[in-house]
Amino acid sequence: MNTLDAIFKPKSIAIIGATTRKGSIGREIIHNLFSFEFNGMIFPVNPRYEYIHSTKAYPTVLSIPDPVDLAVIVVPKEHVLMAAEDCGRKGVKGMVIISAGFKEVGGEGEEREEQLIEIAKKYGIRMVGPNCMGVIAATPDVTMNATFSPSTPRRGNLAFMTQSGALGVAIILAAHKLNLGFSYFASVGNKADVSAVDLLEYWENDEHTGVIGLYLESFDDPTRFTELSKRISKHKPIVAVKSGTSAAGARAASSHTGSLAGLEVAADAVLRQCGVIRVGSIGDLINMVAGFGRSPLPKGDRVGILTNAGGPAIMAADAIESHGLNIAELSTETRERLEAILPPEASVHNPVDMISGAASKEYAEALEIMLSDPGVDLAIPIFVPPLMIEPLGVVRQITAIARQYEKPVLAVLMAEEKYYDMIPREIENAVPYYRFPESAAMVAAALVRHKIWSEKPAGKVQTFDVDRETAVAVLEKKHKSGGGYLSPDDVYTVLRAYGFPLCRHAVVSLGQDIKEAAEKVGYPLVLKIDGESIVHKSDIGGVEVGIEDEEDLCEARQRIEANVSSAGMFQQATGYFVQEMARPGREIILGVMQDPKFGPLLMFGMGGKYFQTLACEHACHAGKDASAQTIFHSGQKFNRLSLFPIGSPDGGCSCSEMMETAESLRRFDRIAMG
Amino acid sequence: MNTLDAIFKPKSIAIIGATTRKGSIGREIIHNLFSFEFNGMIFPVNPRYEYIHSTKAYPTVLSIPDPVDLAVIVVPKEHVLMAAEDCGRKGVKGMVIISAGFKEVGGEGEEREEQLIEIAKKYGIRMVGPNCMGVIAATPDVTMNATFSPSTPRRGNLAFMTQSGALGVAIILAAHKLNLGFSYFASVGNKADVSAVDLLEYWENDEHTGVIGLYLESFDDPTRFTELSKRISKHKPIVAVKSGTSAAGARAASSHTGSLAGLEVAADAVLRQCGVIRVGSIGDLINMVAGFGRSPLPKGDRVGILTNAGGPAIMAADAIESHGLNIAELSTETRERLEAILPPEASVHNPVDMISGAASKEYAEALEIMLSDPGVDLAIPIFVPPLMIEPLGVVRQITAIARQYEKPVLAVLMAEEKYYDMIPREIENAVPYYRFPESAAMVAAALVRHKIWSEKPAGKVQTFDVDRETAVAVLEKKHKSGGGYLSPDDVYTVLRAYGFPLCRHAVVSLGQDIKEAAEKVGYPLVLKIDGESIVHKSDIGGVEVGIEDEEDLCEARQRIEANVSSAGMFQQATGYFVQEMARPGREIILGVMQDPKFGPLLMFGMGGKYFQTLACEHACHAGKDASAQTIFHSGQKFNRLSLFPIGSPDGGCSCSEMMETAESLRRFDRIAMG
Repeated sequence: MNTLDAIFKPKSIAIIGATTRKGSIGREIIHNLFSFEFNGMIFPVNPRYEYIHSTKAYPTVLSIPDPVDLAVIVVPKEHVLMAAEDCGRKGVKGMVIISAGFKEVGGEGEEREEQLIEIAKKYGIRMVGPNCMGVIAATPDVTMNATFSPSTPRRGNLAFMTQSGALGVAIILAAHKLNLGFSYFASVGNKADVSAVDLLEYWENDEHTGVIGLYLESFDDPTRFTELSKRISKHKPIVAVKSGTSAAGARAASSHTGSLAGLEVAADAVLRQCGVIRVGSIGDLINMVAGFGRSPLPKGDRVGILTNAGGPAIMAADAIESHGLNIAELSTETRERLEAILPPEASVHNPVDMISGAASKEYAEALEIMLSDPGVDLAIPIFVPPLMIEPLGVVRQITAIARQYEKPVLAVLMAEEKYYDMIPREIENAVPYYRFPESAAMVAAALVRHKIWSEKPAGKVQTFDVDRETAVAVLEKKHKSGGGYLSPDDVYTVLRAYGFPLCRHAVVSLGQDIKEAAEKVGYPLVLKIDGESIVHKSDIGGVEVGIEDEEDLCEARQRIEANVSSAGMFQQATGYFVQEMARPGREIILGVMQDPKFGPLLMFGMGGKYFQTLACEHACHAGKDASAQTIFHSGQKFNRLSLFPIGSPDGGCSCSEMMETAESLRRFDRIAMG
Repeated sequence: MNTLDAIFKPKSIAIIGATTRKGSIGREIIHNLFSFEFNGMIFPVNPRYEYIHSTKAYPTVLSIPDPVDLAVIVVPKEHVLMAAEDCGRKGVKGMVIISAGFKEVGGEGEEREEQLIEIAKKYGIRMVGPNCMGVIAATPDVTMNATFSPSTPRRGNLAFMTQSGALGVAIILAAHKLNLGFSYFASVGNKADVSAVDLLEYWENDEHTGVIGLYLESFDDPTRFTELSKRISKHKPIVAVKSGTSAAGARAASSHTGSLAGLEVAADAVLRQCGVIRVGSIGDLINMVAGFGRSPLPKGDRVGILTNAGGPAIMAADAIESHGLNIAELSTETRERLEAILPPEASVHNPVDMISGAASKEYAEALEIMLSDPGVDLAIPIFVPPLMIEPLGVVRQITAIARQYEKPVLAVLMAEEKYYDMIPREIENAVPYYRFPESAAMVAAALVRHKIWSEKPAGKVQTFDVDRETAVAVLEKKHKSGGGYLSPDDVYTVLRAYGFPLCRHAVVSLGQDIKEAAEKVGYPLVLKIDGESIVHKSDIGGVEVGIEDEEDLCEARQRIEANVSSAGMFQQATGYFVQEMARPGREIILGVMQDPKFGPLLMFGMGGKYFQTLACEHACHAGKDASAQTIFHSGQKFNRLSLFPIGSPDGGCSCSEMMETAESLRRFDRIAMG
């Protein structure tokens, strides 16, 4: 038995702080439990009442004669600890703490939360909250609405976790309208005990849960989240809204790699590489979950569009193409079969326009023909109800045909409001339906991407032999002496310790003989100004390349000296850096960091002077979705700028996604440090 | 008097083809006219009835004793021409042809449409349709619903034009829910006469129209559309969905510039430069129009967020930042004033979280304080109704306070469905409200961008002295000889004719002495293989740069010969192209084309080998919105890849937007052709 069963599968529930005043949380929760017909016993607890909601009330949980599995606590914050202590003594195994006034208010609230955690630990009680809106179970085994949501949830296969109670309410409301049902729902509040990862684990093999939805503000335990979600999403889709990544704090990080990783792009990379379907809004979340919860995954990306009106079909085709999917080419046989059943004015090329006379019979026949074409992987039937044709019949027929094929069918229904209320009541398990073609196209694209991801092999983990001690020694020494930029020599030492092939080089202080060093390195070579505070050397004319001989070298040195002096930086110079001239090649950037919010990350992309500005550009101008997907180009091949979360946080390269990077690096002969 | 007044301001309407059968178009239109209480006389025309809708019916329009301004024709297609002829003889000045079976079905339908146009011209009748869903006027002067829409439109300040009847229905339905009212509505169908540009012109100075909405599938007259929309959008916002740009046809164009211009990016460029607010979906259109129709434009981009729940505020802040707007920093005074009225647990930093106890009083006071802060340009109050707090009161207070300030207030209401129906009935002129924070943020961003655009000076038109005759002669000669790529000499002639500064150069055929040409051009120089069919020279090693002397030249020539031979292309070579070595600089690409769908376009961006692949990349991977905004980088400064529509299609540079480009070009000393 899972310890979370005490929360989600209780046989009896005590509502500590139940009341009778309509509109108060203590009344709405007990009312919701009764009206959703909890399949167990409900015990109101409140010393001021004899009975509540026609049910005998008890002064404390200890005075209840029967066993209590779950306690829902809605008393004022001052009484919560006492109530929890009572629960422990009573042998209660789960608590949902609705009451606010804990960590979220700081100060003594934080202390109170610590004490609450202590009590829960002492008695081995699992706890949701505090400061949450409650939990729901709506499986064949358990019907429990222990929330104060004003709208009644439907039963379905979505398990949903939210870090925001308010958004939880909004989601239950929006889900209702789109015929979206829940298996479980949990508002986790301050997450003093139960968090997103616990719930992911709990729902992983739950037979009633087909799709998992998350509203995340933070990854509490990025390593465990990554591990779990990667495993689960291979067989059960996870759709998430991740918010809060734009906070001013994230932008404060100042180094190049730091500022990138702190941004949106890191959250995107983590979620994408774990197969989590990320969406940008609650509306998209609902649309996505409706699609993933009620559709098989498509075998390919060829979309068939069926419509009774031109405009919406064009918009669907535009959206399909803009998401990178293909408009299916229908076979001759399919077109002939369509011709046989449709009026001559109809278009039997995809998008198939049946014109406005098409009713449920035509939708059924044409959809059947379309889905039986092996060149169609997914269908979007669009219906704009003309006068005289009843929308419910059309949706019913589309649903009936869709059930016969293992292909996703995402309907677009642009109808009067009342039909959106009627469908859930009248048609059992209707296909997912959307108000606008763009929503269906967005979901179609996500289904295709998820199919590709779900079939992607997990990859092999490779560990490289590296000399960590040498690298650590260099870094620690620098750290002890106050930090700052590493000298070129130190950088080369670190890189060499990690097995990177390097260019020949020498560092020459200002007074030293540069020619001798040059002879040792060998011509042709590169001369760079050196100085800890001179970071962007080429910007101030501090770099000369292609130096062929001693004469060149003298001239180059003079030019650099003149340039750096006229930039007012020569006083900061400590010497020159002489480097073997690298053969023409690809400049790349590679960065590794330990991000407090996302765990270990690796960055790889097009480097050199392009990097910095492109990356900033990127961060400033790109929208959320674009940021992690933009592809940089260098020469003939593409390098995707990626952030890879690294599997094990204690060092070493042990994550399969890094293999591609590592392989790319191996193609380079030498590394010329910038 | 405008000729379109016959359509939108008739004193009497004949419904030719009116019937009594519920659900038929002929009945629904007359029913809608009566129930929307048309302020004029309605004459049903149908020889089979004595009366229709309790009103005397006439056998033909000619038998009506009174004058008829507008005829709505719903008879079967075979009878339309006769009905139109009757209208002409009767002196009718406007027709709305609902009937289908014209150009859209091809063949004899096309012929029928030609004849219809002839009749309209002969009698000077303005005509909407055929194959449309009708027109609406809902101003203080005219109340006319001559459509068969199942839902009754509200009165408001949105004038809407749609090329798709089905989407017109969907828009009226969706608008209803968001409290969005119309001044005019026109479904233009086949646009045999009245098109988008006619309507833009008609609505430009209409006092009842505050915002114009368009669903476009094509620009019928790009030059006039550009001119008009540019002028109108300076004082009246135009929001448009432009669809159909992804059609396979657009992709067929093969040359670099051609393929780019045929794409999405061209539609985006045209609309953006005309100040038209482009959206990607009907849902966004409705959201945008609600915002633009009921808000002033903001003075800046600093957004204040007010909430009673953390989650939605975080999502709003994320979205605000991802659109490039700023989260306003509240003044000390503002924060102190907020502290004075809010509970200690509230956060008085932006986003201001009033926590869940906030009711209409707190919303009113806090919003007033926020809007009075000169550092706040625009406010997004978010309300997730907790138990016990009535949403209508909150929206009413927000509306009352918003009216006192010339700042946009975009509310987010995450409430039960019933409230969305109640607000339009209960609160007059409520502030725009949205279901999710992301929608409000999107509209906020559009308002800010539109403000910036509306204040952008129109720019000066500059004409350059060019030698068109010489250029035309070169092109015509090439054209007559079968087309293909121009030779380097021809290209230089054309460029010189347009006044571009050029590098010294010489063309040497295979047998000729290359050294002599090199001496003439002068060292250092560049040697390139030449041949009409060798387009991507550097890809096959056909370019050598930095040739310092004769010895270098010989070696370079040998290397090129070897490279091109091993690429199997040497047989296609006709000679060498010797060019002065250009100083290091910026490579740009410049293209001009006459696009059949968008008119004259100019493309400008980062050139060289980067261009081609980036541009393809761009076209393939970028989403709709991103495509025209991606900024390419070269060196230290940014070059925006832009498509500029050129004002006058008959040549010459006469568009103000080109000035920036022209100025950029002047910064280059020489042009080295790639």
